[in-house]
Amino acid sequence: MNIFIVYCHPEPKSLNGTLKNLAVKTLKENGHQIKISDLYGMKFKATLDRDDFLQMENPERLMPVIEQFNASKTNSFARDIKEEMEKIGWADLIIFQFPIWYETMPALLKAWFERVLAHGFAHNMLEGKIIQNGFLKGKKAMLSFTAGSAKETFYNVIEGEDKSNLLPPISKALRFTGLEVIDAFAVFDAMPLSEEDAKTSFGEYKKLLSEL
Amino acid sequence: MNIFIVYCHPEPKSLNGTLKNLAVKTLKENGHQIKISDLYGMKFKATLDRDDFLQMENPERLMPVIEQFNASKTNSFARDIKEEMEKIGWADLIIFQFPIWYETMPALLKAWFERVLAHGFAHNMLEGKIIQNGFLKGKKAMLSFTAGSAKETFYNVIEGEDKSNLLPPISKALRFTGLEVIDAFAVFDAMPLSEEDAKTSFGEYKKLLSEL
Repeated sequence: MNIFIVYCHPEPKSLNGTLKNLAVKTLKENGHQIKISDLYGMKFKATLDRDDFLQMENPERLMPVIEQFNASKTNSFARDIKEEMEKIGWADLIIFQFPIWYETMPALLKAWFERVLAHGFAHNMLEGKIIQNGFLKGKKAMLSFTAGSAKETFYNVIEGEDKSNLLPPISKALRFTGLEVIDAFAVFDAMPLSEEDAKTSFGEYKKLLSEL
Repeated sequence: MNIFIVYCHPEPKSLNGTLKNLAVKTLKENGHQIKISDLYGMKFKATLDRDDFLQMENPERLMPVIEQFNASKTNSFARDIKEEMEKIGWADLIIFQFPIWYETMPALLKAWFERVLAHGFAHNMLEGKIIQNGFLKGKKAMLSFTAGSAKETFYNVIEGEDKSNLLPPISKALRFTGLEVIDAFAVFDAMPLSEEDAKTSFGEYKKLLSEL
């Protein structure tokens, strides 16, 4: 498979960095093709703004939805956005590797959602091209995340044992584009992880990745 | 009251910009003191990283929780973070004005949560200083947001009619600090809003603000 890893953590030596490296190694060993976006490392632009668009339909007033539709039609997204879109187009599976900060993904990864999973590229709600008709249909997505707190302390964020529905606001956003969200991989109580727990987690992740 | 408005939208002419201006005018007329952080306008740094800390406890490996605790003890947060913390210290009520992008607040506002509502400043989970013992106890927070979609299309984000619990992941994050989250103000179907609906919404918001 072609697998695109979107990785978001400021510290290469972090648990998230280690899990990202483990994924690259394991997936390559299993014959997959890999592309990575290291959002901190590449200094991915962290705000949706006018610079996202090479030309604007209405320069008098930035309306993000209007300009994303226009940029999709006229191929006028900024270079960094286009590069991410090309990786998505190439991928069969997208893996998101990130820590939970304040109940959800880091701001920088949220910026990737806002800027790259754009109107007209990932979906078109005006024409009903969402969910089962979203433009990313046929591709899969997987969340791989770490949390300092225990699983039990999550309220309204993690529900039940359906691992494809961990972090429902994020899963919902991905499903909106037509992506099929497969079971997540999560490390809880990572504050920090004991050496033994780390070993167990790495083993579980490696097993999961080998079965993709 | 001392009221701190945290406003996040890239376009001053947006509905969010108009609601922010309406709040400033109405609250001033009602005798309140106002401070504003216009996150896009002030080019607020949109990523938590090493530059958040004037000195680091462990420069070898950035662990955000550790460094936030350390910066709280040693008064070594970056200048822009300190300025936001001072506004919070001054405020009786914090109003957040933002659009819903992909189910939740914009990335730039999320960055404000991550960088400013820091460990050791807003709460200390290691010492049980969270929720009713959080460091921001005694202050209030209010969400004021706009959404392109209808209220009914929100899934797992808006629950029931408890307006203090709109957008539960965000409300929960604020409550974690001890803030009392009061009823939210929301404008749905803003895609865009008809002139008549806008007039109705502005009237409702003005009334709500006048009763604070």
